Amino acid sequence: MGKRFGILTSGGDCPGLNAVIRGAVLKGETVYGQEFVGFRDGWWGLVHGEVMDLDRSVVRGLSHQGGTILGTSRFGPYQEPDGGAENIAKVLDRLDLDGVVAIGGEGTASASKRLYEDGINIVGVPKTIDNDLDATDYTFGFNTAVEIATEAIDRLRTTGNSHKRCMVLEVMGRHAGWIALYSGIAGGAHAILIPEQPESIDQICAWVTSVKKRGRSPMVVVAEGFKLPEMSDAHSTKGLDGFNRPRLGGIAEVLAPLIQERTGIETRATVLGHIQRGGVPTGFDRVLATRLGMATTDLIADRGWGQMVALRGTDIVRVGFDEALANHKTVPQDQYQEIRVIFG
Amino acid sequence: MGKRFGILTSGGDCPGLNAVIRGAVLKGETVYGQEFVGFRDGWWGLVHGEVMDLDRSVVRGLSHQGGTILGTSRFGPYQEPDGGAENIAKVLDRLDLDGVVAIGGEGTASASKRLYEDGINIVGVPKTIDNDLDATDYTFGFNTAVEIATEAIDRLRTTGNSHKRCMVLEVMGRHAGWIALYSGIAGGAHAILIPEQPESIDQICAWVTSVKKRGRSPMVVVAEGFKLPEMSDAHSTKGLDGFNRPRLGGIAEVLAPLIQERTGIETRATVLGHIQRGGVPTGFDRVLATRLGMATTDLIADRGWGQMVALRGTDIVRVGFDEALANHKTVPQDQYQEIRVIFG
Amino acid sequence: MGKRFGILTSGGDCPGLNAVIRGAVLKGETVYGQEFVGFRDGWWGLVHGEVMDLDRSVVRGLSHQGGTILGTSRFGPYQEPDGGAENIAKVLDRLDLDGVVAIGGEGTASASKRLYEDGINIVGVPKTIDNDLDATDYTFGFNTAVEIATEAIDRLRTTGNSHKRCMVLEVMGRHAGWIALYSGIAGGAHAILIPEQPESIDQICAWVTSVKKRGRSPMVVVAEGFKLPEMSDAHSTKGLDGFNRPRLGGIAEVLAPLIQERTGIETRATVLGHIQRGGVPTGFDRVLATRLGMATTDLIADRGWGQMVALRGTDIVRVGFDEALANHKTVPQDQYQEIRVIFG
Amino acid sequence: MGKRFGILTSGGDCPGLNAVIRGAVLKGETVYGQEFVGFRDGWWGLVHGEVMDLDRSVVRGLSHQGGTILGTSRFGPYQEPDGGAENIAKVLDRLDLDGVVAIGGEGTASASKRLYEDGINIVGVPKTIDNDLDATDYTFGFNTAVEIATEAIDRLRTTGNSHKRCMVLEVMGRHAGWIALYSGIAGGAHAILIPEQPESIDQICAWVTSVKKRGRSPMVVVAEGFKLPEMSDAHSTKGLDGFNRPRLGGIAEVLAPLIQERTGIETRATVLGHIQRGGVPTGFDRVLATRLGMATTDLIADRGWGQMVALRGTDIVRVGFDEALANHKTVPQDQYQEIRVIFG
Repeated sequence: MGKRFGILTSGGDCPGLNAVIRGAVLKGETVYGQEFVGFRDGWWGLVHGEVMDLDRSVVRGLSHQGGTILGTSRFGPYQEPDGGAENIAKVLDRLDLDGVVAIGGEGTASASKRLYEDGINIVGVPKTIDNDLDATDYTFGFNTAVEIATEAIDRLRTTGNSHKRCMVLEVMGRHAGWIALYSGIAGGAHAILIPEQPESIDQICAWVTSVKKRGRSPMVVVAEGFKLPEMSDAHSTKGLDGFNRPRLGGIAEVLAPLIQERTGIETRATVLGHIQRGGVPTGFDRVLATRLGMATTDLIADRGWGQMVALRGTDIVRVGFDEALANHKTVPQDQYQEIRVIFG
Repeated sequence: MGKRFGILTSGGDCPGLNAVIRGAVLKGETVYGQEFVGFRDGWWGLVHGEVMDLDRSVVRGLSHQGGTILGTSRFGPYQEPDGGAENIAKVLDRLDLDGVVAIGGEGTASASKRLYEDGINIVGVPKTIDNDLDATDYTFGFNTAVEIATEAIDRLRTTGNSHKRCMVLEVMGRHAGWIALYSGIAGGAHAILIPEQPESIDQICAWVTSVKKRGRSPMVVVAEGFKLPEMSDAHSTKGLDGFNRPRLGGIAEVLAPLIQERTGIETRATVLGHIQRGGVPTGFDRVLATRLGMATTDLIADRGWGQMVALRGTDIVRVGFDEALANHKTVPQDQYQEIRVIFG
Repeated sequence: MGKRFGILTSGGDCPGLNAVIRGAVLKGETVYGQEFVGFRDGWWGLVHGEVMDLDRSVVRGLSHQGGTILGTSRFGPYQEPDGGAENIAKVLDRLDLDGVVAIGGEGTASASKRLYEDGINIVGVPKTIDNDLDATDYTFGFNTAVEIATEAIDRLRTTGNSHKRCMVLEVMGRHAGWIALYSGIAGGAHAILIPEQPESIDQICAWVTSVKKRGRSPMVVVAEGFKLPEMSDAHSTKGLDGFNRPRLGGIAEVLAPLIQERTGIETRATVLGHIQRGGVPTGFDRVLATRLGMATTDLIADRGWGQMVALRGTDIVRVGFDEALANHKTVPQDQYQEIRVIFG
Repeated sequence: MGKRFGILTSGGDCPGLNAVIRGAVLKGETVYGQEFVGFRDGWWGLVHGEVMDLDRSVVRGLSHQGGTILGTSRFGPYQEPDGGAENIAKVLDRLDLDGVVAIGGEGTASASKRLYEDGINIVGVPKTIDNDLDATDYTFGFNTAVEIATEAIDRLRTTGNSHKRCMVLEVMGRHAGWIALYSGIAGGAHAILIPEQPESIDQICAWVTSVKKRGRSPMVVVAEGFKLPEMSDAHSTKGLDGFNRPRLGGIAEVLAPLIQERTGIETRATVLGHIQRGGVPTGFDRVLATRLGMATTDLIADRGWGQMVALRGTDIVRVGFDEALANHKTVPQDQYQEIRVIFG
């Protein structure tokens, strides 16, 4: 009866990946006598059979270590020439592995679902720093990103106040504004701009001007995926000033000069970038990741292929790939509107 | 139609209290035209009619500020000579206040319930750094405490390893071990000791010895309320070494010498103490506190007296005082057992 | 005998400005019976006589607060129409002030020197986040900036390793590379690029490639003022690929695509920006700033006009404006070469 | 010509030890072709010839890692039965080592001096978290300890204010009060108590009462080595209340009840303990430690036996063991008096 499993981490890295791996190995070994290997660089390692041993000594001290010791990539399991369920089954057979734990985001879950339907023993652990997976209340990494962004706002606020400037901070969030929403609320931002909700440059400037009139320095937090409705596409700001301006840098670098031109308030942009996804995870993310890793060992012991582990309230539950992928979790209108009323 | 309300903070302080106040004032003013005053030093200010104005300018920048600008105390609303619902009703009348928002823990909720039953318009916001209120998935302040304790473990680990010592860290948690559990998991502790679960000194030493044999330095996290079953009462360690030893300092200071004597491993105690409840709240706690504060304004606008706001999953909900007080939220056996299997 | 003085903060803000103000007010009041006002927004407040009172209650709790409660600006004291020593003397006379404490960088020191030569009672406190004032071993704010940049490198390293990417971090330092040098050493960067030392793109790529060959992910820290010798001017990268490429964003955003093109290693840029100069100062900066503020009260009590306070070793000393301005403190060749040998 | 050297770390651990080791290995290998081994657990490893290899791959990523990968102990090189210069010379010969780098505090420097006089090729790197070595402006680890203590004060302040309590924080410093002085200044403490300067309980209570009268919550920072003049010895508080009270726990736990009894102000003690010496070093300490490590390779290449590397201003210099040990660096009276005048 197979007790050997392979773990992979796929897509963008997140603080907490190593804690998932550690949680699975520690509990799996101790409780179920499971053995683990790690596939290198995501699906690439699975497709090519490139593995590293994962035992108690390897995962020692991993819970506070950012990134993933397995490496990650954007390589897909059906990618030619060696991908596909048939070849993967051979790899698993050759490595004497009974199943796969795929830690990843929406793309990873979709691929996992297809592999599962094609007969591969596979379970999933949800991972997205943007927190946009509907299967789970929170994804690990998100909390760390929010804390980093919040600290950045705290820092920008004092320099903004000293110079009476408007500060614009761009945080991650291509399709969902969770990091912007949470860090913006935490940091007391005067406007929070998210992909889910267009706001006109006039509205934004109205908020900024209102803050300034109260004698304060405006703080705007914007998710990278926010689009001005005036922007004809992601790569220009056409319509705002009558000609196509090439979009370089982030949306903060588009917004800052527009705000300055229109309000007359000196405005500076900061793009937080990759530091949001690196480094020591928060305690919250380590706990969540460890619990998910431990619950995964129960799931594979039960041969619960085709499912993911997820957080609901304070419980770790199981969700089918189908259900997990049914909805994209964006910021609900009512939650945004509740905070929007105090902007400005 | 009354739109004036008083806010008080009672019991031990928590990071996030100020964010609750700020959230309530900002939304209440903007959406409902509510006005707020703050009672000074908890119930004392309500009983004695000592208030400060709370408006937008007062709550400016409060979300990242620890403690409570209102002050707090352990004074109770029925405390003689001026306490009691009748007198409090007069105070509210004199101050032209339509209701009370009481931010506090179990004691505060009990007192609020009694006041409500005695005819006072009162709602509650749950607050306990120990996270032991069943009404809500998490209480604000808890997350900050966990992060502080986790960082302490990270620091203790390197000094423990360098000296090959066993390190014992005592964290808060008189009746519930949530901070110990979460920070212990996050920090990769080799044993976590909580009030809910007695563990014998033999068991603890077995874990410590096992870690040492693997060449690592044991890390033990203990909640202040943990008791050795051998201890005849909270103030002695009688039975362990045949005579009553006076219990001074925290439980960590009891455990460390016992571990050292029995295992021969040099052992050091650290009592984290008050730094767990002070200072800048985490982003998570600021968001939770702000959301609770904002939801409170809806509750009082609806005249939902006798209820508290609470977190369920990712939603802010309402819970009656009765329900909120029905159960004390301790660490469930299965959640403790799941992590206990990997101790040592 | 005049005991009233005005304080101003000029130029870019720095963590520690408030601690200087607090240190001066607390010691000045207590020891010398001095009284202080603060000029608003740098020289602007002095020229226009716009002041705020500064006493013990105002400076309460200021040492850990970033920015400057006085505000700052780039306005100069000789700026028309109201500037100039004659007008300033009238303002001081009208406000009954005996002298001025000007906290600022090189420009502020130059202007102070001219005012002093024109008869104004003025002393200086050196301030530059770039640490490029020769008068003093370290300037406050620099330490905080280094810690923030170091933490960013720590974070970028884990995400770089997970993705096998080269990470390029741009930190402050227009004319001096101190922040890059210190944070780069602290973070274990594989290449540190500073304004004082041109390095060819070939050399940079050689370091990056060498790191990659050892199986590690290259980390490059670059000061904003670094210039590739191949760049004909600050606004283009002409010569590198045969055509003028408009220079947008920081130097990191120029370097990253060049490194990627030439080495084939995926490379990402992060521009740290304004978060380096905001927020809570480190303990080191608070101590330095407090000591400088306290020493300033001795200096003005001694009527030591025309001098600045400065750090030498562990002592606070006095330096004439002339001497302070004689040299720009850049990174010495030998200090750079010592670390350069271990690049790659 | 010998190019092989052994490194040891002795005494209490400090953040930065690993960065010294890394700096030495990286520069020594690259510039001089030196090879290194590490003695395990301080002098114990030297006396017993227990070593680990130290090359570039081993020191990878060490600069931000607290503690020492070599282990440390309080074992002395002349400790029986195997210690002494003659035996150590044999060990070095057997291991083909040309000299020793001893990283440690005053005891280590004394032992190194004796070994040097007995013919051993040895150099030193100063290490003391208490910063009490006169040879050097600052020792690494001290800066990290100050930052940790400063953050603790920041946290205690908000909880103190909320409850109107006096908070007493005990920090490290058995014979020198540097950590208390620096963190106390940084945190804006109302009284700083150091071993160098007795202060009566009456004086302390006078400061505390004065703060309270101004409506603030008193913050007292005390070094572990501070003694009340009323205390007949370190183990009792006799004389204060007429009977010998056993001294258990730290001095903070002695002071807090005394302050409370005498002032009537609720007072709480926190003993920071071992977290001050563990965990990730600050950037400042990593730079200092790395520079010291690199300078050590120059020193051993020059065969400068009998000397230590040290920081003077911003320069790394060399100091003979004699000179290094001539004076103990305590807080000078004038520096203490300068800050003492603003206590209360």
